[in-house]
Amino acid sequence: MSNFSIGVDLGGTNLRIAAVNEQGDLMEKVTLGTRVALGKDHVIHEMCDAIRALTAKYRDAGLLQGIGVGVPGIIDLKTGMLREAPNLPGWSESPVLTLGTGVGGGIVLEGRIWHGMTGMAGEFGHMTVEPEGPQCGCGNRGCVEQYASATAVVRMAKEAIASGRAPALAIAADSDAEFNARAVYNLAIQGDEEARKIFGRVGRALGICIANLVNAFNLPMYVVGGGVASAWEAFSPFIFEELRQRSLIYAATAPRSPLSDGEGASGQVESEGPARTIITRALLGSDAGLYGAAQLPMTRTS
Amino acid sequence: MSNFSIGVDLGGTNLRIAAVNEQGDLMEKVTLGTRVALGKDHVIHEMCDAIRALTAKYRDAGLLQGIGVGVPGIIDLKTGMLREAPNLPGWSESPVLTLGTGVGGGIVLEGRIWHGMTGMAGEFGHMTVEPEGPQCGCGNRGCVEQYASATAVVRMAKEAIASGRAPALAIAADSDAEFNARAVYNLAIQGDEEARKIFGRVGRALGICIANLVNAFNLPMYVVGGGVASAWEAFSPFIFEELRQRSLIYAATAPRSPLSDGEGASGQVESEGPARTIITRALLGSDAGLYGAAQLPMTRTS
Repeated sequence: MSNFSIGVDLGGTNLRIAAVNEQGDLMEKVTLGTRVALGKDHVIHEMCDAIRALTAKYRDAGLLQGIGVGVPGIIDLKTGMLREAPNLPGWSESPVLTLGTGVGGGIVLEGRIWHGMTGMAGEFGHMTVEPEGPQCGCGNRGCVEQYASATAVVRMAKEAIASGRAPALAIAADSDAEFNARAVYNLAIQGDEEARKIFGRVGRALGICIANLVNAFNLPMYVVGGGVASAWEAFSPFIFEELRQRSLIYAATAPRSPLSDGEGASGQVESEGPARTIITRALLGSDAGLYGAAQLPMTRTS
Repeated sequence: MSNFSIGVDLGGTNLRIAAVNEQGDLMEKVTLGTRVALGKDHVIHEMCDAIRALTAKYRDAGLLQGIGVGVPGIIDLKTGMLREAPNLPGWSESPVLTLGTGVGGGIVLEGRIWHGMTGMAGEFGHMTVEPEGPQCGCGNRGCVEQYASATAVVRMAKEAIASGRAPALAIAADSDAEFNARAVYNLAIQGDEEARKIFGRVGRALGICIANLVNAFNLPMYVVGGGVASAWEAFSPFIFEELRQRSLIYAATAPRSPLSDGEGASGQVESEGPARTIITRALLGSDAGLYGAAQLPMTRTS
């Protein structure tokens, strides 16, 4: 008998619902497509059905502690209203259960989650890296997520194909109806120059964003998560290149060996000696938001 | 009889030394040019002479509590060594008395100064706003300070003059051997289009930087200080324009009236109602660093 909670990760593409026990172990995960086109009520209905099904299934396993929902948008923590959600058209001004920090970002200061004044801290995806860059759904141009998201990888691949300079990407796109970021990644690790350039842009955008955070806040660790983190090998060298150029603080506190940026060859972080700035990828990959949402009902906030 | 402290603001252009009493009132301020070309020892000698003179003069007024020095560079708080100082060539690896946060930036979280892992937090001036922008002394390109400093205003004015499209600026530069940012500001408030454009770039760079900070940390107040803040009227409209475009968080929490961004027409900030993000200028102007340095010996850190 173990208590459990339910986490929901409501993304623009996927709707995922998981039951997680008190030890943080996954009991069951359900993944549905987010059928945004069918409207808000339909999506909420599907979400509630899945929550009900999981709750009924594990009723005898333990007590349901609560349900946490992560949504991609701006939430007013006081009223619980979703104010803006560029990736969920039609959801503005909807009341939602709240994760507290924007999906895609979170800040831990001195061991506690930093929510910001209105619980909106952590919108790293909408920090500007190219003032005149591609238009973003949020109204800005050149946001990090216009370079460092799976959607952006596919968009950049289509741009490269349209320019006529990416034959391997064109073949991959033609032969695969579900041409996605993973297909671009596969070409990049096989050495295709155009695919590599795309992950170069992913890494450079992240590098500029992280360099700005290092310069502003001088925190000890920066963790890159989400689906895109599974392409770490392809883009991380560009993160470190940008960091060394754009942050004297990083240059002064980077791990000593050029091979030991971030995780290092051994996967170990130096535990002694002068303070170091560590950049690494998240262990939970694309499930981080889901686990975080499930964790919420288990946590008593101070 | 009032105790006092001495603050030093060692900038790339000016060396300022002030005696400040326990109430924070200025007793006396000495401003010298920082004669970087004469070498580090010469500058330190001048600084020490001025400190000695002030200490002797106010010996009978009260007890000297200590001396605080602000320097423009990266300091290792553990060793007290100045690691990098782009605007003070030849000063790297020098031991200094430390202010703790880089000159030009500081962060207050929950009422306390946020120093960061190695005391380097607050290097907002070196956040990237244009990845391919002008080369900065720190090694990066397109840093905030390449747009939003007095030096940058003069550089942009000279670029405009060289392009042949800025006759009023050219006349001002010809007639004034000490052509400076204030001269550009005077033309801007008189309506000269090219001078206005320069302050537009100042404001846009600050706006991008502040929008990124709002998106990342969702803090309630952002204060713009330093010498450049005296041109607030010329550049602040561009800050707010960028903020509204580049930060949904700002758009959702901006002061309600379009006239009440920042200080508002009445100089009052709304004290009730929903949480608002306030952007304003520092009251102390270019003396903020000097007062901060003087404050340091008076403060017991937790």
